[in-house]
Amino acid sequence: MSHPSKTFSKQASKTLYEIIFNRRDVRGEFNNKPIADEVLARLLIAAHHAPSVGFMQPWNFLLIQQETQRTAVHKLFQTANEEAKQQFDSERQNLYQSLKLEGLLTSPLHICVTCDRNRAGPVVLGRTHMHDTDLYSTVCAVQNFWLAARAENIGVGWVSIFHEAELKKLLKIPQEIHIIAYLTVGHVNSFHQTPDLARKGWRNRLNLNDLVMHDEWNNHKNNNLSDHIQSQLERLNPDPKNPENKS
Amino acid sequence: MSHPSKTFSKQASKTLYEIIFNRRDVRGEFNNKPIADEVLARLLIAAHHAPSVGFMQPWNFLLIQQETQRTAVHKLFQTANEEAKQQFDSERQNLYQSLKLEGLLTSPLHICVTCDRNRAGPVVLGRTHMHDTDLYSTVCAVQNFWLAARAENIGVGWVSIFHEAELKKLLKIPQEIHIIAYLTVGHVNSFHQTPDLARKGWRNRLNLNDLVMHDEWNNHKNNNLSDHIQSQLERLNPDPKNPENKS
Repeated sequence: MSHPSKTFSKQASKTLYEIIFNRRDVRGEFNNKPIADEVLARLLIAAHHAPSVGFMQPWNFLLIQQETQRTAVHKLFQTANEEAKQQFDSERQNLYQSLKLEGLLTSPLHICVTCDRNRAGPVVLGRTHMHDTDLYSTVCAVQNFWLAARAENIGVGWVSIFHEAELKKLLKIPQEIHIIAYLTVGHVNSFHQTPDLARKGWRNRLNLNDLVMHDEWNNHKNNNLSDHIQSQLERLNPDPKNPENKS
Repeated sequence: MSHPSKTFSKQASKTLYEIIFNRRDVRGEFNNKPIADEVLARLLIAAHHAPSVGFMQPWNFLLIQQETQRTAVHKLFQTANEEAKQQFDSERQNLYQSLKLEGLLTSPLHICVTCDRNRAGPVVLGRTHMHDTDLYSTVCAVQNFWLAARAENIGVGWVSIFHEAELKKLLKIPQEIHIIAYLTVGHVNSFHQTPDLARKGWRNRLNLNDLVMHDEWNNHKNNNLSDHIQSQLERLNPDPKNPENKS
């Protein structure tokens, strides 16, 4: 006999869409209010219930709370960010330099999310042909964590401007473990309504209909779905015009 | 003047946790009820509002609905799965063979989610030092899609037993585009309460406390957080004992 499974209401999906649309990559708005262990526990449980290839659960969560460690990580960022800046042309460099790209010193908690590729032995169900699916599973855990944090009104920023080898050395992470994400986590003064990089003129949201294809690559057909994407965008309003610029 | 941002209620986070805990990797329960374009539009909007490195939005969504294409994809799976099976030792092979690993013929819609690494030019903000962050952004889009689908009571299965080159050829995907996920999508008769691979005895849920470390690798300390993880697991009950085995 099949067991009845949970049916979610319209209200539940509406709530999820609001959480998804209001999630931000937080850099400048952290405050130093500590995160309650009870809340952090729930965020980690959400991460741990991500899908994983072969039910491998290849993730670890390395929590960095010591101030000396957070400061040392910030130094690694500064060096790498100086190198990163040089890679853009001179006009972009000015804009790049004006962007706040991390909240490493202002967030009370960092989490290094890693992937142990050997967790389930050498042969993993579902990873035999697409070998990077274990890395991708770990990203699913990151995204669960991020959405759960937003629903708990806690900010998360993903910082990726580091030399992985130096970060591993500092955190004593073994060579064979992969760093997937380095997250800054904390309460925030507010969440912006639009992504920083859109608001600052770095890059805009693309048109979703341009990204959808049918049955084979580059087959963009105008059909019912395109119309529905347009009308659902108007109804859900995921990218409100930002009044923050006007103040 | 800072603009007030959305504050989510306790009820909102409770809803999100329920969605996360009830999401399944669906293989055997699809039915042939078509997905309304209005709903599919919302799922794609949710995916498109994932975070992305440098706001790159490197994803495309290739929707496969033609039966000839879905059948051809299933053939690719069959060949690869026969190879995959051979990689396990003989005891595991019997169990492997008994597992339902895809719903390619029963789901009315497949989505190939890809990553265009050149979307934002050769130098991407945030990808200068960790080059795979664009692949990871695309996985965030997959996870948003998956959770949104669950909230709309629609099943998703991630199938990864393919030769990527053959799948690209069939779908006319250019060489330089990366396939991140191949999803089967459809209405379902029911969702299982626990992951298939746990229920079938392939692999169990790991203990979350074993996966959490502090300030440097392998530093597992028993602290308040461990106790809170235990008590929140009891409160949220994300892995209920499965009555399905008993029937």
